[in-house]
Amino acid sequence: MKVLLVLAHPEPRSFNGALRDAARDTLLQAGHDVRESDLHAMRWQPVLRADCFADQASDAPGVFFNAQAAQRQAVATGTQSADVLAEQGKLAWADLVIVIFPVWWFGVPAILKGWIDRVFAVGVAYGGGRWFDNGVYRGKRVLIACTTGARNDRFAEDGLFGPIDWVLHPLRVGTFNFCGFDTLTPFVAWAAGHVGDEGRSRYLEQWRARLAGIESETPQPFRHLADFPSPAMRNHR
Amino acid sequence: MKVLLVLAHPEPRSFNGALRDAARDTLLQAGHDVRESDLHAMRWQPVLRADCFADQASDAPGVFFNAQAAQRQAVATGTQSADVLAEQGKLAWADLVIVIFPVWWFGVPAILKGWIDRVFAVGVAYGGGRWFDNGVYRGKRVLIACTTGARNDRFAEDGLFGPIDWVLHPLRVGTFNFCGFDTLTPFVAWAAGHVGDEGRSRYLEQWRARLAGIESETPQPFRHLADFPSPAMRNHR
Repeated sequence: MKVLLVLAHPEPRSFNGALRDAARDTLLQAGHDVRESDLHAMRWQPVLRADCFADQASDAPGVFFNAQAAQRQAVATGTQSADVLAEQGKLAWADLVIVIFPVWWFGVPAILKGWIDRVFAVGVAYGGGRWFDNGVYRGKRVLIACTTGARNDRFAEDGLFGPIDWVLHPLRVGTFNFCGFDTLTPFVAWAAGHVGDEGRSRYLEQWRARLAGIESETPQPFRHLADFPSPAMRNHR
Repeated sequence: MKVLLVLAHPEPRSFNGALRDAARDTLLQAGHDVRESDLHAMRWQPVLRADCFADQASDAPGVFFNAQAAQRQAVATGTQSADVLAEQGKLAWADLVIVIFPVWWFGVPAILKGWIDRVFAVGVAYGGGRWFDNGVYRGKRVLIACTTGARNDRFAEDGLFGPIDWVLHPLRVGTFNFCGFDTLTPFVAWAAGHVGDEGRSRYLEQWRARLAGIESETPQPFRHLADFPSPAMRNHR
Protein backbone atom coordinates (compact mmCIF):
# COMPACT_ATOMS: atom_id res chain seq x y z
CA MET A 1 0.00 0.00 0.00
CA LYS A 2 0.94 3.62 -0.47
CA VAL A 3 0.33 5.42 2.80
CA LEU A 4 0.30 9.15 3.48
CA LEU A 5 0.90 10.15 7.10
CA VAL A 6 -0.42 13.59 8.01
CA LEU A 7 0.65 14.95 11.40
CA ALA A 8 -0.76 18.13 12.93
CA HIS A 9 1.04 18.64 16.22
CA PRO A 10 3.45 21.47 17.11
CA GLU A 11 5.89 19.18 18.96
CA PRO A 12 7.37 16.24 17.02
CA ARG A 13 8.43 14.54 20.28
CA SER A 14 4.85 14.61 21.58
CA PHE A 15 2.68 11.53 21.86
CA ASN A 16 1.12 12.52 18.55
CA GLY A 17 4.63 12.49 17.11
CA ALA A 18 5.15 9.05 18.63
CA LEU A 19 2.00 7.82 16.91
CA ARG A 20 3.41 9.10 13.64
CA ASP A 21 6.81 7.50 14.25
CA ALA A 22 5.21 4.18 15.20
CA ALA A 23 3.03 4.29 12.08
CA ARG A 24 6.01 5.01 9.85
CA ASP A 25 8.07 2.18 11.37
CA THR A 26 5.28 -0.37 11.37
CA LEU A 27 4.17 0.37 7.83
CA LEU A 28 7.68 0.41 6.36
CA GLN A 29 8.44 -2.85 8.11
CA ALA A 30 5.34 -4.38 6.53
CA GLY A 31 6.64 -3.35 3.11
CA HIS A 32 4.33 -0.42 2.46
CA ASP A 33 5.40 2.85 0.86
CA VAL A 34 5.15 5.86 3.14
CA ARG A 35 5.03 9.56 2.44
CA GLU A 36 4.51 12.25 5.04
CA SER A 37 3.04 15.67 5.63
CA ASP A 38 4.21 17.01 8.97
CA LEU A 39 2.22 20.22 8.82
CA HIS A 40 4.16 22.08 11.50
CA ALA A 41 7.55 21.02 10.13
CA MET A 42 6.32 22.24 6.72
CA ARG A 43 5.14 25.52 8.29
CA TRP A 44 1.85 24.92 6.48
CA GLN A 45 -0.02 28.16 5.76
CA PRO A 46 -3.62 27.33 6.71
CA VAL A 47 -5.59 30.39 5.65
CA LEU A 48 -7.53 30.24 2.38
CA ARG A 49 -7.38 33.81 1.12
CA ALA A 50 -6.68 35.85 -1.97
CA ASP A 51 -2.90 35.75 -1.77
CA CYS A 52 -2.99 31.95 -2.06
CA PHE A 53 -3.67 32.59 -5.75
CA ALA A 54 -1.13 34.13 -8.06
CA ASP A 55 -3.77 35.82 -10.18
CA GLN A 56 -5.75 37.32 -7.30
CA ALA A 57 -4.33 40.66 -6.32
CA SER A 58 -4.85 40.61 -2.58
CA ASP A 59 -6.32 43.79 -1.17
CA ALA A 60 -6.65 45.31 -4.63
CA PRO A 61 -9.81 47.38 -4.55
CA GLY A 62 -12.39 46.15 -7.00
CA VAL A 63 -11.18 42.55 -7.03
CA PHE A 64 -13.82 40.46 -5.30
CA PHE A 65 -12.34 37.30 -3.82
CA ASN A 66 -14.52 34.21 -4.16
CA ALA A 67 -12.61 31.24 -2.77
CA GLN A 68 -14.27 28.55 -4.88
CA ALA A 69 -14.07 30.63 -8.05
CA ALA A 70 -10.39 31.27 -7.39
CA GLN A 71 -9.78 27.56 -6.87
CA ARG A 72 -11.63 26.65 -10.07
CA GLN A 73 -9.68 29.19 -12.05
CA ALA A 74 -6.33 28.15 -10.60
CA VAL A 75 -7.08 24.54 -11.51
CA ALA A 76 -8.22 25.51 -15.01
CA THR A 77 -5.17 27.65 -15.68
CA GLY A 78 -2.65 25.40 -13.93
CA THR A 79 -1.73 28.10 -11.45
CA GLN A 80 -2.38 26.43 -8.14
CA SER A 81 0.31 27.18 -5.60
CA ALA A 82 3.16 24.69 -5.21
CA ASP A 83 2.35 23.76 -1.61
CA VAL A 84 -1.26 22.87 -2.49
CA LEU A 85 -0.23 20.95 -5.62
CA ALA A 86 2.26 18.87 -3.63
CA GLU A 87 -0.40 17.83 -1.12
CA GLN A 88 -2.93 17.05 -3.85
CA GLY A 89 -0.26 14.89 -5.46
CA LYS A 90 0.19 12.96 -2.24
CA LEU A 91 -3.57 12.40 -1.95
CA ALA A 92 -3.73 11.18 -5.54
CA TRP A 93 -0.82 8.82 -4.83
CA ALA A 94 -2.03 7.35 -1.55
CA ASP A 95 -4.17 4.25 -1.02
CA LEU A 96 -4.49 5.05 2.67
CA VAL A 97 -4.29 8.42 4.41
CA ILE A 98 -3.59 8.45 8.13
CA VAL A 99 -4.39 11.74 9.86
CA ILE A 100 -2.90 12.21 13.33
CA PHE A 101 -3.84 15.15 15.56
CA PRO A 102 -4.82 16.24 19.06
CA VAL A 103 -8.51 17.09 19.54
CA TRP A 104 -8.58 20.80 20.40
CA TRP A 105 -11.95 22.40 21.18
CA PHE A 106 -13.85 19.38 19.84
CA GLY A 107 -12.11 19.58 16.51
CA VAL A 108 -8.88 19.56 14.55
CA PRO A 109 -6.16 22.16 15.16
CA ALA A 110 -6.34 25.15 12.83
CA ILE A 111 -3.30 24.02 10.85
CA LEU A 112 -5.08 20.78 9.89
CA LYS A 113 -8.36 22.54 9.12
CA GLY A 114 -6.39 24.84 6.85
CA TRP A 115 -4.76 21.88 5.11
CA ILE A 116 -8.27 20.72 4.26
CA ASP A 117 -9.56 24.20 3.37
CA ARG A 118 -6.72 24.75 0.88
CA VAL A 119 -5.83 21.27 -0.45
CA PHE A 120 -9.34 19.89 -0.98
CA ALA A 121 -9.97 22.42 -3.70
CA VAL A 122 -13.08 22.43 -5.86
CA GLY A 123 -12.21 21.10 -9.29
CA VAL A 124 -9.66 18.71 -7.77
CA ALA A 125 -11.12 17.04 -4.70
CA TYR A 126 -14.81 17.49 -5.54
CA GLY A 127 -17.16 19.32 -7.86
CA GLY A 128 -19.31 18.62 -10.90
CA GLY A 129 -21.17 15.76 -9.24
CA ARG A 130 -18.01 14.12 -7.93
CA TRP A 131 -18.82 13.53 -4.27
CA PHE A 132 -19.70 10.65 -1.96
CA ASP A 133 -20.28 7.52 -4.15
CA ASN A 134 -18.97 9.42 -7.16
CA GLY A 135 -16.17 11.00 -5.19
CA VAL A 136 -12.74 11.73 -6.59
CA TYR A 137 -11.01 9.56 -3.98
CA ARG A 138 -13.31 6.52 -4.16
CA GLY A 139 -11.32 3.38 -3.45
CA LYS A 140 -8.99 5.17 -1.05
CA ARG A 141 -9.21 4.87 2.71
CA VAL A 142 -8.63 7.16 5.67
CA LEU A 143 -7.67 6.35 9.24
CA ILE A 144 -8.22 9.11 11.78
CA ALA A 145 -5.95 8.88 14.83
CA CYS A 146 -6.37 11.43 17.57
CA THR A 147 -5.66 12.17 21.19
CA THR A 148 -8.07 13.76 23.63
CA GLY A 149 -7.52 15.64 26.85
CA ALA A 150 -10.57 14.03 28.43
CA ARG A 151 -11.44 10.47 29.26
CA ASN A 152 -13.76 8.51 26.99
CA ASP A 153 -16.75 8.84 29.32
CA ARG A 154 -16.88 12.56 28.53
CA PHE A 155 -17.34 11.67 24.87
CA ALA A 156 -19.96 8.97 25.45
CA GLU A 157 -23.49 9.32 24.03
CA ASP A 158 -24.64 10.67 27.39
CA GLY A 159 -21.35 12.37 28.25
CA LEU A 160 -20.76 16.01 29.03
CA PHE A 161 -19.00 16.61 25.74
CA GLY A 162 -21.37 14.59 23.55
CA PRO A 163 -20.39 11.64 21.36
CA ILE A 164 -16.92 11.49 19.84
CA ASP A 165 -18.75 10.66 16.60
CA TRP A 166 -20.05 14.21 16.54
CA VAL A 167 -16.54 15.55 17.02
CA LEU A 168 -15.21 13.46 14.13
CA HIS A 169 -18.26 13.91 11.88
CA PRO A 170 -16.84 16.92 10.00
CA LEU A 171 -13.77 14.85 9.14
CA ARG A 172 -15.36 11.48 8.56
CA VAL A 173 -18.45 12.50 6.62
CA GLY A 174 -17.96 16.20 5.92
CA THR A 175 -14.52 15.86 4.38
CA PHE A 176 -13.50 12.28 3.66
CA ASN A 177 -16.79 10.52 2.75
CA PHE A 178 -17.72 13.74 0.93
CA CYS A 179 -14.70 13.28 -1.34
CA GLY A 180 -15.20 9.53 -1.71
CA PHE A 181 -12.83 8.15 0.92
CA ASP A 182 -13.84 5.18 3.01
CA THR A 183 -13.00 5.64 6.67
CA LEU A 184 -11.66 3.03 9.05
CA THR A 185 -12.65 2.97 12.72
CA PRO A 186 -10.90 5.94 14.32
CA PHE A 187 -8.06 5.30 16.74
CA VAL A 188 -8.65 7.48 19.79
CA ALA A 189 -6.04 7.72 22.55
CA TRP A 190 -8.26 8.99 25.36
CA ALA A 191 -6.75 11.34 27.94
CA ALA A 192 -3.34 10.76 26.41
CA GLY A 193 -1.75 13.37 28.66
CA HIS A 194 -3.16 11.83 31.83
CA VAL A 195 -2.53 8.09 31.50
CA GLY A 196 1.17 8.10 32.30
CA ASP A 197 4.01 6.52 30.38
CA GLU A 198 2.54 3.08 30.92
CA GLY A 199 -0.81 4.09 29.48
CA ARG A 200 0.81 5.73 26.49
CA SER A 201 2.98 2.65 25.89
CA ARG A 202 -0.16 0.54 25.88
CA TYR A 203 -1.75 2.90 23.34
CA LEU A 204 1.33 2.60 21.14
CA GLU A 205 1.18 -1.19 21.32
CA GLN A 206 -2.49 -1.11 20.30
CA TRP A 207 -1.65 1.32 17.53
CA ARG A 208 1.14 -0.81 16.12
CA ALA A 209 -1.12 -3.88 16.26
CA ARG A 210 -3.88 -1.98 14.40
CA LEU A 211 -1.47 -0.89 11.71
CA ALA A 212 0.01 -4.35 11.24
CA GLY A 213 -3.41 -5.56 10.12
CA ILE A 214 -4.67 -2.36 8.57
CA GLU A 215 -4.78 -3.67 5.01
CA SER A 216 -7.51 -6.19 5.78
CA GLU A 217 -9.73 -3.96 7.92
CA THR A 218 -13.36 -3.43 6.97
CA PRO A 219 -14.21 0.27 6.59
CA GLN A 220 -16.94 2.04 8.54
CA PRO A 221 -20.29 2.38 6.80
CA PHE A 222 -19.96 4.82 3.92
CA ARG A 223 -22.37 7.73 3.54
CA HIS A 224 -24.13 6.52 0.39
CA LEU A 225 -26.03 9.08 -1.64
CA ALA A 226 -28.82 6.57 -2.24
CA ASP A 227 -29.45 6.31 1.50
CA PHE A 228 -30.14 10.02 1.72
CA PRO A 229 -32.56 10.98 -1.02
CA SER A 230 -32.95 14.72 -1.12
CA PRO A 231 -36.30 15.45 0.54
CA ALA A 232 -38.56 18.27 -0.47
CA MET A 233 -37.00 21.53 0.57
CA ARG A 234 -38.03 22.40 4.10
CA ASN A 235 -38.07 25.92 5.43
CA HIS A 236 -35.74 26.96 2.67
CA ARG A 237 -34.86 30.65 3.09
CA MET B 1 -24.89 45.94 25.60
CA LYS B 2 -21.27 45.61 24.66
CA VAL B 3 -21.07 43.51 21.53
CA LEU B 4 -18.04 41.93 19.90
CA LEU B 5 -18.40 41.10 16.20
CA VAL B 6 -16.02 38.42 14.96
CA LEU B 7 -15.86 37.94 11.19
CA ALA B 8 -13.96 35.09 9.51
CA HIS B 9 -14.35 35.61 5.77
CA PRO B 10 -11.59 36.46 3.29
CA GLU B 11 -13.74 38.94 1.35
CA PRO B 12 -15.26 41.87 3.29
CA ARG B 13 -17.76 42.53 0.47
CA SER B 14 -19.07 38.97 0.71
CA PHE B 15 -22.46 38.08 2.15
CA ASN B 16 -20.67 37.25 5.40
CA GLY B 17 -19.29 40.77 5.30
CA ALA B 18 -22.82 42.07 4.71
CA LEU B 19 -24.01 40.19 7.80
CA ARG B 20 -21.27 41.90 9.78
CA ASP B 21 -22.09 45.33 8.36
CA ALA B 22 -25.79 44.84 9.07
CA ALA B 23 -25.02 43.74 12.61
CA ARG B 24 -22.80 46.75 13.22
CA ASP B 25 -25.40 49.19 11.88
CA THR B 26 -28.36 47.64 13.67
CA LEU B 27 -26.57 47.36 17.01
CA LEU B 28 -25.12 50.87 16.92
CA GLN B 29 -28.51 52.24 15.98
CA ALA B 30 -30.03 50.49 19.00
CA GLY B 31 -27.46 52.20 21.21
CA HIS B 32 -25.16 49.27 21.87
CA ASP B 33 -21.37 49.49 21.96
CA VAL B 34 -19.65 47.52 19.22
CA ARG B 35 -16.10 46.27 18.86
CA GLU B 36 -14.86 44.11 16.03
CA SER B 37 -12.40 41.39 15.14
CA ASP B 38 -12.21 41.03 11.37
CA LEU B 39 -9.79 38.12 11.40
CA HIS B 40 -8.70 38.44 7.78
CA ALA B 41 -8.30 42.20 7.97
CA MET B 42 -6.18 41.63 11.09
CA ARG B 43 -4.15 38.94 9.27
CA TRP B 44 -4.79 36.74 12.30
CA GLN B 45 -2.09 34.10 12.77
CA PRO B 46 -4.06 30.93 13.54
CA VAL B 47 -1.40 28.37 14.39
CA LEU B 48 -0.75 27.59 18.06
CA ARG B 49 2.96 26.79 18.11
CA ALA B 50 6.15 27.52 20.01
CA ASP B 51 6.90 30.86 18.39
CA CYS B 52 3.61 32.22 19.73
CA PHE B 53 5.44 32.42 23.05
CA ALA B 54 8.33 34.78 23.68
CA ASP B 55 10.00 32.40 26.09
CA GLN B 56 9.74 29.29 23.92
CA ALA B 57 12.70 29.02 21.58
CA SER B 58 11.07 27.56 18.50
CA ASP B 59 13.00 24.71 16.95
CA ALA B 60 15.60 24.82 19.72
CA PRO B 61 16.63 21.23 20.28
CA GLY B 62 15.87 20.07 23.78
CA VAL B 63 12.97 22.46 24.32
CA PHE B 64 9.79 20.41 24.41
CA PHE B 65 6.77 22.46 23.42
CA ASN B 66 3.61 21.74 25.41
CA ALA B 67 0.90 24.14 24.28
CA GLN B 68 -1.08 24.23 27.51
CA ALA B 69 2.05 24.52 29.66
CA ALA B 70 3.26 27.37 27.47
CA GLN B 71 -0.09 29.13 27.80
CA ARG B 72 -0.11 28.71 31.59
CA GLN B 73 3.40 30.07 31.86
CA ALA B 74 2.72 33.01 29.58
CA VAL B 75 -0.32 33.92 31.67
CA ALA B 76 1.62 33.54 34.93
CA THR B 77 4.53 35.65 33.72
CA GLY B 78 2.46 38.21 31.85
CA THR B 79 4.13 37.37 28.56
CA GLN B 80 1.18 36.46 26.37
CA SER B 81 1.52 37.89 22.89
CA ALA B 82 -0.13 41.22 22.14
CA ASP B 83 -2.55 39.84 19.55
CA VAL B 84 -3.88 37.20 21.95
CA LEU B 85 -4.14 39.69 24.84
CA ALA B 86 -6.13 42.10 22.71
CA GLU B 87 -8.69 39.42 21.80
CA GLN B 88 -8.94 38.22 25.40
CA GLY B 89 -9.59 41.82 26.38
CA LYS B 90 -12.45 42.03 23.91
CA LEU B 91 -13.98 38.81 25.27
CA ALA B 92 -13.70 40.13 28.83
CA TRP B 93 -15.36 43.36 27.73
CA ALA B 94 -18.25 41.91 25.72
CA ASP B 95 -21.72 41.00 26.95
CA LEU B 96 -22.52 39.39 23.61
CA VAL B 97 -20.15 37.86 21.07
CA ILE B 98 -21.40 37.42 17.51
CA VAL B 99 -19.34 35.04 15.39
CA ILE B 100 -19.90 35.23 11.64
CA PHE B 101 -18.39 32.70 9.23
CA PRO B 102 -19.02 30.47 6.22
CA VAL B 103 -19.33 26.75 6.99
CA TRP B 104 -16.39 25.10 5.24
CA TRP B 105 -16.07 21.32 5.42
CA PHE B 106 -18.71 21.09 8.17
CA GLY B 107 -16.82 23.48 10.37
CA VAL B 108 -15.29 26.89 10.84
CA PRO B 109 -12.56 28.21 8.53
CA ALA B 110 -9.04 27.61 9.82
CA ILE B 111 -8.55 31.27 10.70
CA LEU B 112 -11.47 31.13 13.13
CA LYS B 113 -10.41 27.78 14.60
CA GLY B 114 -7.02 29.33 15.20
CA TRP B 115 -8.56 32.35 16.89
CA ILE B 116 -10.12 29.88 19.34
CA ASP B 117 -6.99 27.72 19.65
CA ARG B 118 -4.84 30.73 20.58
CA VAL B 119 -7.21 33.16 22.37
CA PHE B 120 -9.09 30.69 24.57
CA ALA B 121 -5.93 29.96 26.53
CA VAL B 122 -5.85 27.78 29.61
CA GLY B 123 -5.49 30.00 32.66
CA VAL B 124 -7.57 32.71 31.01
CA ALA B 125 -10.62 31.17 29.33
CA TYR B 126 -10.79 27.96 31.37
CA GLY B 127 -8.83 25.83 33.82
CA GLY B 128 -8.80 25.04 37.50
CA GLY B 129 -12.44 23.97 37.57
CA ARG B 130 -13.62 27.00 35.64
CA TRP B 131 -15.77 25.49 32.92
CA PHE B 132 -19.46 25.11 32.03
CA ASP B 133 -21.52 26.33 35.04
CA ASN B 134 -18.35 27.65 36.67
CA GLY B 135 -17.02 29.00 33.38
CA VAL B 136 -15.01 32.19 33.10
CA TYR B 137 -17.53 33.78 30.73
CA ARG B 138 -20.73 32.90 32.63
CA GLY B 139 -23.31 35.62 32.09
CA LYS B 140 -22.08 36.38 28.58
CA ARG B 141 -23.85 35.25 25.44
CA VAL B 142 -22.82 34.12 21.98
CA LEU B 143 -24.69 34.26 18.69
CA ILE B 144 -23.35 32.07 15.91
CA ALA B 145 -24.18 33.32 12.41
CA CYS B 146 -23.08 31.26 9.46
CA THR B 147 -23.65 30.62 5.80
CA THR B 148 -23.78 27.22 4.14
CA GLY B 149 -23.21 26.13 0.58
CA ALA B 150 -25.99 23.56 0.83
CA ARG B 151 -29.71 23.84 1.45
CA ASN B 152 -31.12 23.15 4.87
CA ASP B 153 -32.46 19.71 3.89
CA ARG B 154 -28.89 18.46 3.60
CA PHE B 155 -28.36 19.39 7.24
CA ALA B 156 -31.63 17.88 8.50
CA GLU B 157 -31.61 15.02 11.01
CA ASP B 158 -32.01 12.56 8.11
CA GLY B 159 -30.03 14.63 5.62
CA LEU B 160 -26.95 13.62 3.69
CA PHE B 161 -24.71 15.88 5.75
CA GLY B 162 -26.23 15.12 9.14
CA PRO B 163 -27.77 17.66 11.51
CA ILE B 164 -26.47 21.23 11.55
CA ASP B 165 -26.40 20.79 15.34
CA TRP B 166 -23.52 18.36 14.91
CA VAL B 167 -21.68 20.86 12.76
CA LEU B 168 -22.10 23.59 15.36
CA HIS B 169 -21.57 21.35 18.40
CA PRO B 170 -17.81 22.05 18.66
CA LEU B 171 -18.57 25.77 18.79
CA ARG B 172 -21.74 25.75 20.86
CA VAL B 173 -20.83 23.16 23.49
CA GLY B 174 -17.14 22.45 22.90
CA THR B 175 -16.01 26.06 22.99
CA PHE B 176 -18.68 28.46 24.22
CA ASN B 177 -20.68 26.43 26.79
CA PHE B 178 -17.35 24.95 27.85
CA CYS B 179 -16.13 28.42 28.81
CA GLY B 180 -19.45 29.44 30.37
CA PHE B 181 -21.13 31.33 27.53
CA ASP B 182 -24.83 30.93 26.90
CA THR B 183 -25.63 30.49 23.22
CA LEU B 184 -28.54 31.97 21.33
CA THR B 185 -30.27 30.10 18.51
CA PRO B 186 -27.81 30.13 15.60
CA PHE B 187 -28.62 32.21 12.54
CA VAL B 188 -28.00 30.06 9.49
CA ALA B 189 -28.22 31.51 5.98
CA TRP B 190 -28.73 28.30 4.02
CA ALA B 191 -27.28 28.08 0.54
CA ALA B 192 -26.36 31.74 0.71
CA GLY B 193 -24.54 31.57 -2.60
CA HIS B 194 -27.48 30.02 -4.41
CA VAL B 195 -30.52 32.01 -3.34
CA GLY B 196 -29.92 35.08 -5.48
CA ASP B 197 -29.90 38.72 -4.46
CA GLU B 198 -33.51 38.50 -3.41
CA GLY B 199 -32.87 35.56 -1.13
CA ARG B 200 -29.87 37.24 0.41
CA SER B 201 -31.84 40.46 0.96
CA ARG B 202 -34.47 38.44 2.77
CA TYR B 203 -31.78 36.87 4.97
CA LEU B 204 -30.45 40.32 5.79
CA GLU B 205 -33.93 41.51 6.75
CA GLN B 206 -34.37 38.51 9.03
CA TRP B 207 -30.92 39.15 10.47
CA ARG B 208 -31.61 42.80 11.22
CA ALA B 209 -34.92 41.86 12.83
CA ARG B 210 -33.20 39.23 14.99
CA LEU B 211 -30.60 41.72 16.14
CA ALA B 212 -33.11 44.43 16.94
CA GLY B 213 -34.60 42.14 19.56
CA ILE B 214 -31.46 40.29 20.55
CA GLU B 215 -31.27 41.66 24.08
CA SER B 216 -34.47 39.92 25.15
CA GLU B 217 -33.86 36.54 23.51
CA THR B 218 -33.90 33.39 25.59
CA PRO B 219 -30.67 31.39 25.25
CA GLN B 220 -30.51 27.78 24.10
CA PRO B 221 -30.34 25.15 26.84
CA PHE B 222 -26.98 25.37 28.56
CA ARG B 223 -24.82 22.27 29.03
CA HIS B 224 -25.11 22.02 32.82
CA LEU B 225 -22.51 19.95 34.63
CA ALA B 226 -25.20 18.55 36.94
CA ASP B 227 -27.02 17.04 33.96
CA PHE B 228 -23.96 15.03 32.99
CA PRO B 229 -22.64 13.28 36.08
CA SER B 230 -19.38 11.58 35.29
CA PRO B 231 -20.20 7.89 34.93
CA ALA B 232 -17.85 5.14 35.90
CA MET B 233 -14.98 5.00 33.48
CA ARG B 234 -15.81 2.83 30.53
CA ASN B 235 -13.21 1.15 28.37
CA HIS B 236 -10.65 3.59 29.63
CA ARG B 237 -7.34 2.96 27.84
